[in-house]
Amino acid sequence: MTFESDLIETLMAPPPPEALAMMRLSLFDWAACARAAVDEPVAQITRAMVLDEAGAPQAALFGGGRAPARAAALVNGATSHALDYDDTHFAHIGHPSVAVCPAAMAVGQSVGAQGAAILHAALIGAEASVRVGVWLGRGHYQIGFHQTATAGCFGATLAAARLLGCDAGQTAHALGLATTRASGLKVQFGTMGKPYNAGIAAANGVESALLARAGMTSRPDALSCDLGFGATHHGAAVTVPDGWLFPQVSHKFHSCCHGLHAMLEALGELRSTLHPDHVARVEIDTHSRWLTVCNQAAPQTGLGAKFSYRLTAALCLAGRSTAAVATFSDAACTDPALVALRDRVVVLGDDDLTETAARVRVVLQDGTVRTAFHDLAAPLDPGHRAAKLRAKAAALLGDALADKLWQAVQSDDFGQLIG
Amino acid sequence: MTFESDLIETLMAPPPPEALAMMRLSLFDWAACARAAVDEPVAQITRAMVLDEAGAPQAALFGGGRAPARAAALVNGATSHALDYDDTHFAHIGHPSVAVCPAAMAVGQSVGAQGAAILHAALIGAEASVRVGVWLGRGHYQIGFHQTATAGCFGATLAAARLLGCDAGQTAHALGLATTRASGLKVQFGTMGKPYNAGIAAANGVESALLARAGMTSRPDALSCDLGFGATHHGAAVTVPDGWLFPQVSHKFHSCCHGLHAMLEALGELRSTLHPDHVARVEIDTHSRWLTVCNQAAPQTGLGAKFSYRLTAALCLAGRSTAAVATFSDAACTDPALVALRDRVVVLGDDDLTETAARVRVVLQDGTVRTAFHDLAAPLDPGHRAAKLRAKAAALLGDALADKLWQAVQSDDFGQLIG
Repeated sequence: MTFESDLIETLMAPPPPEALAMMRLSLFDWAACARAAVDEPVAQITRAMVLDEAGAPQAALFGGGRAPARAAALVNGATSHALDYDDTHFAHIGHPSVAVCPAAMAVGQSVGAQGAAILHAALIGAEASVRVGVWLGRGHYQIGFHQTATAGCFGATLAAARLLGCDAGQTAHALGLATTRASGLKVQFGTMGKPYNAGIAAANGVESALLARAGMTSRPDALSCDLGFGATHHGAAVTVPDGWLFPQVSHKFHSCCHGLHAMLEALGELRSTLHPDHVARVEIDTHSRWLTVCNQAAPQTGLGAKFSYRLTAALCLAGRSTAAVATFSDAACTDPALVALRDRVVVLGDDDLTETAARVRVVLQDGTVRTAFHDLAAPLDPGHRAAKLRAKAAALLGDALADKLWQAVQSDDFGQLIG
Repeated sequence: MTFESDLIETLMAPPPPEALAMMRLSLFDWAACARAAVDEPVAQITRAMVLDEAGAPQAALFGGGRAPARAAALVNGATSHALDYDDTHFAHIGHPSVAVCPAAMAVGQSVGAQGAAILHAALIGAEASVRVGVWLGRGHYQIGFHQTATAGCFGATLAAARLLGCDAGQTAHALGLATTRASGLKVQFGTMGKPYNAGIAAANGVESALLARAGMTSRPDALSCDLGFGATHHGAAVTVPDGWLFPQVSHKFHSCCHGLHAMLEALGELRSTLHPDHVARVEIDTHSRWLTVCNQAAPQTGLGAKFSYRLTAALCLAGRSTAAVATFSDAACTDPALVALRDRVVVLGDDDLTETAARVRVVLQDGTVRTAFHDLAAPLDPGHRAAKLRAKAAALLGDALADKLWQAVQSDDFGQLIG
């Protein structure tokens, strides 16, 4: 029994309904993030390249036009990760949907698959990418590999192989081909190379599956064998827990660094009952690890604002939508009212908190103290999660388009997601 | 000064004429190897995939048809390495032409470049792949990476970037994108994944250059920086010698394991003056390293024959063309005359020889002893090399097509090489 054969067998089991339901939410969120990014440079550049290639219109591109499945997967992967606003799986360690959904959608469209089949394939791919990510381990990420792309490629491959109707042997060869195709480095962070990595993973998965289905051979154990992908890529061959791991996925509800999200959730609980003019002081407790990541005291750019507890807290208290990308603007950094609020925020390290938790204390001018606590690791009621994702999509795209995407995803009409 | 900026500066210097002349020979040999492989499964499968995508006819495919440059690079890379008969650079460690020439030819055709520009770009790419291969070092190869693909991707990128007219900044970003795109594992050896690796490198190079020219950004120092390609891929950052390294490239003149070539060259010097029926015994001295690689005593398949001193010596003495792929057949392994000759061959390890040398002693039935010695590392007169490459091409393709390719390559009419 190799890791690969065990993986494939695990994924053949009927998935639990809650896993499929979570995949449906992730597909919706993935499409909303991509739709909001179609004018980003990385989206325009990749789209222009494949439209210039003028291939068969097998699958739709975010931003318009159609292309062969391999090409569509590249464009849609890069586009959907351009805002860095898509889902995260902390065990994976990475963003499962941006690698897997583009592959499942492109191949699904190219073969005319039903929505239910696309959803099931996407879930299998997402679960596979999480399991491969866990198996590779933290060392793989720490040394410099971008798990979203590397582990993601194997998920994209299995999603594509399923929709192409690959048999067991072809599926094993597809995984083997993916070992020699998968790539992606973290040093791309801060450049267009980061979202490109998601497109690479998706396109490589489609290509590996297409070639294996056509008879190309590889080593079926090339992930786990001596000198294989794990061995060459600093994998630790970590034992993967039983059960479906994908449902532990996290969704971003704020368009900023994930380290700020627990604070924003806690502050959000208090906001509706506070007037910003009445706030004398805000104290934020967070794990000290985050103080080196996202604690810019006085950011001067929109990008800097995404890494600032103080300014982000001010935006929240002032009633700005932290779900909207445009909220994190250069102008916000110099807005006098926001700067005045920002200067009343104090950030404190507290290592009794986990890395996913934050505590806020708001002291009002009348001396009243309001407190709240949030832990991102706490379970989120599915209905509440859905409502938050719909609100996020509305902030990104407007109510009408967000509703249209929501209806499409509820009715398995996934073709509507892209355009 | 980073490794990358030093590399780019080195390649900007006018190349020495002997380097361009060697590249011309390699282009000829590359095309001959690819033309002979168009019916191999890996060639058919990759070609069918990109023809199904039906993209713009930017560049020609070996085996017929045209495709966008990225797709043509993939097909022509895999096709040209399918027979494993293309050039080798022992410092690289790999096969430079199968990664670089497909990229240079595909982009050259897509932009309508002159032959001289394609030749120069191919040389720059090949030199770059050798230099990156040396810089990565033997450990990169030993741990399991296929330098032909990994180092080759950077060569393909620089060849493509030059033909696309990338400026210095775009070229640096292209190299940066290539670091997150490059891949290829040795565990694919013995499967179609090995020639696929060459296609991957070529296609990745074209894509990286196309995207960088369109404005995609990356880290210009992503090869050599902390957590970069070298650090993540077990690179040793070996100091690369000055001067052009590509001209030390080796060409294969026999369609079998490179470990047999010195023996075949030595035996070839004697063959014309010997009748096989008069041979009583043949003794072969070779470095003992090869005894575990290519010393199958009584192979039963054509593939096994390619790894057999004894049968290959018998083929040579019997006057069969060891340049022709078809010579290494299952039937040859059971041919009574060849088996009788094979059984008169003795193979001996001699570690006083280098790994590139072999000595043969032929004892005739009248007691006469004939000896010969060959070292593959000895310089080969350019005219002699050209004559041997033309004979190889003729053995693969017939005289007429070999002559046509030779004329094409002499007149810079490289479009004729592919079809």
